[in-house]
Amino acid sequence: MQQFLEESKKISQEIATLSGETKTKVLNEMADALIEHCDFIISKNDKDMSEATLNGLSDALLDRLLLTGQRVEAMAQAIREIAALKEPVGRTLEGWVTPNGLNIQKVSVPIGVIGIIYESRPNVTSDTAALCFKSGNVCVLKGGKEAEHSNNAIANVLKHVLAKNKLPEQAISLLPDSSREGVAQLIKQDKYVDLIVPRGGEALIRYISQNSTIPVVKHDKGLCHIFIDKDANHSKAIKIAINAKCQRPGVCNAMETLLVHQDVARYILPPLYEAFTANNTQLKGCELTREYIDIQCATQEDYDTEYLANILNIKVVKDVDEAIAHIAKYGSGHSESIISENYSMVTKFLNEVDAACVYANASTRFTDGGAFGLGAEVGISTNKLHSRGPMGINDLTTFKYKIYGNGQIR
Amino acid sequence: MQQFLEESKKISQEIATLSGETKTKVLNEMADALIEHCDFIISKNDKDMSEATLNGLSDALLDRLLLTGQRVEAMAQAIREIAALKEPVGRTLEGWVTPNGLNIQKVSVPIGVIGIIYESRPNVTSDTAALCFKSGNVCVLKGGKEAEHSNNAIANVLKHVLAKNKLPEQAISLLPDSSREGVAQLIKQDKYVDLIVPRGGEALIRYISQNSTIPVVKHDKGLCHIFIDKDANHSKAIKIAINAKCQRPGVCNAMETLLVHQDVARYILPPLYEAFTANNTQLKGCELTREYIDIQCATQEDYDTEYLANILNIKVVKDVDEAIAHIAKYGSGHSESIISENYSMVTKFLNEVDAACVYANASTRFTDGGAFGLGAEVGISTNKLHSRGPMGINDLTTFKYKIYGNGQIR
Repeated sequence: MQQFLEESKKISQEIATLSGETKTKVLNEMADALIEHCDFIISKNDKDMSEATLNGLSDALLDRLLLTGQRVEAMAQAIREIAALKEPVGRTLEGWVTPNGLNIQKVSVPIGVIGIIYESRPNVTSDTAALCFKSGNVCVLKGGKEAEHSNNAIANVLKHVLAKNKLPEQAISLLPDSSREGVAQLIKQDKYVDLIVPRGGEALIRYISQNSTIPVVKHDKGLCHIFIDKDANHSKAIKIAINAKCQRPGVCNAMETLLVHQDVARYILPPLYEAFTANNTQLKGCELTREYIDIQCATQEDYDTEYLANILNIKVVKDVDEAIAHIAKYGSGHSESIISENYSMVTKFLNEVDAACVYANASTRFTDGGAFGLGAEVGISTNKLHSRGPMGINDLTTFKYKIYGNGQIR
Repeated sequence: MQQFLEESKKISQEIATLSGETKTKVLNEMADALIEHCDFIISKNDKDMSEATLNGLSDALLDRLLLTGQRVEAMAQAIREIAALKEPVGRTLEGWVTPNGLNIQKVSVPIGVIGIIYESRPNVTSDTAALCFKSGNVCVLKGGKEAEHSNNAIANVLKHVLAKNKLPEQAISLLPDSSREGVAQLIKQDKYVDLIVPRGGEALIRYISQNSTIPVVKHDKGLCHIFIDKDANHSKAIKIAINAKCQRPGVCNAMETLLVHQDVARYILPPLYEAFTANNTQLKGCELTREYIDIQCATQEDYDTEYLANILNIKVVKDVDEAIAHIAKYGSGHSESIISENYSMVTKFLNEVDAACVYANASTRFTDGGAFGLGAEVGISTNKLHSRGPMGINDLTTFKYKIYGNGQIR
């Protein structure tokens, strides 16, 4: 393992300095190769599918695992879109000249070697490999056990394109030891690996965050709130609340708790109740909420739960301060929104709520790379440092200073 | 401890949203208070000094520990300079409007709660407290045991100013349990502490990096190189090499190994030998170097050593590629420099060397916040992520997205 990662580190210098032209060409060839070897990939996926069926995986998981001709096309298309992204390496982020004439340029550079740990969906293999390659990084991929044959097939097709272009095949590789022990080893190799990105269940992410000696950018839970202020436009408020909860309840940027200003509770709760009921949302509420609408009681534990389902807590609050305090206590720092036409309340909420994305008068559902216009999404970071919120390809770079002198000494 | 840090986290919201005006005013009052209570601080420092003398601390360490009237003035002056820095919070870093009209603003915000672990010099207490406060962060300081009375005195003076301004005193505080056990606990409290900055010996930094579950920005070792290319201007090369090694050998941005292109070795090594000898530098060299000048032999281990002393390795290399490979193997990613008038060689070196600061035709000694023009220095990060290279006060901020909508839903 150590020897393998040492080699990854070694080749990272070559990958880091490839021209944008080369990277684009190689990525487009990778897209072609996926389509060319579609039958091979699907035959390997069949193996995973039969083993998974034997192992009694749920229908939802089986569907995530399945590859079809159309899905392989979509993987190829995703690589083409990544190939077409603006070159992320070498952007000048800042630049200035010091009084003694040193010209300092802060420029974006690849991170180096990135370990990515993920589950089931085999398309993640080609997506993340392409994102890492485009940004000049070497990736070490650790997919789910259940997708092992599919992931191997995809990685082999991509590696073959690297070899054809006389590039080190190990630039895209699967972790040689894909057991738990292998992961445990990987996350301690800070000499060779620069970043770990875990994508998966809460337990996996917690284990990695607690044990990694390498920086981790995590995609943790999303416990998002919307606060309907007393000066909210009611029709906007209802439309946004419904969208944030019901359009896709199983995702991290969906709302889990709706906070309502006490002065408008009596007016807005009944129409909200009607709209949510029409959307089959299961509602739970605080004592005050239940004075206006007849719903279940919400417990402290409910406020702490990321339902990932069409269930919503409603809580009446005294004012914006109580809303902000509730969010500080229960929020996960992901996405929070205020619905209000009042300038000072909006400003206060945007300034004081500590989250990656703080909205005024919009649905929390916009927290993603595509909606932000960042192009292909790497993930949504719940870290506070390095990356925060929707991550585009630029988030797979760091920076260095280039300093142009003319004989300066101190 | 946990209860204490929970409180730090709680008050961090209040500190994060203080106006620049308030922060400047409070900091200037802190500077005044240090001078007003100078005698009190020095009397507490006397205690540390006598204990340290009894414990047999070296003269160098005693000098680092000592506070005098002049040194307390300097601490006050440093706070005034930090007070005068441009407001680091609320800078718009990027901003754009999405096709559906969401106005997305990426703005700088405080990190939250920062734990700083440092040794001996008591002025670090007031410097870092002021830097954290100016950037809207709560700090938890863990100074050296030997400076305990001094640090307590300084922190109490600063806390008193906070209290006078009706601000939570705990915004600037010393870790309640300053034992090793206390540090071990601190670095696991990722729920309440957002960043750990260790400043000190290699062992301390390694221990913290390996065991912290909180992101760490470390100030690690500096093993810096200069490469004299075949197209170097010789007088610039000699001037820069001498400066990088001899001006202050004990610091992290001093040069440890000089790489010389084989084509110019015979011409430049003799005058370099003369110049270094005049500066009392102890020289060690590779076999080829020793064909031209009569010096000790350099071992593999020497190339791996951060001397922090007036000792230098010299190695003759075949070309820029061998220089870059040597730096990749032995460098610590801190500061590296090429001396060359050749455009392509300079470009290649600046692009391919992976370090925080890569120079052309200048001394590596410029890697610091002051020389970069960043104002008061937080440290020099050898991290690759979050911060890299000289850290100014802006590096004590992260960002969030503020999104201004008008009823948008997905």
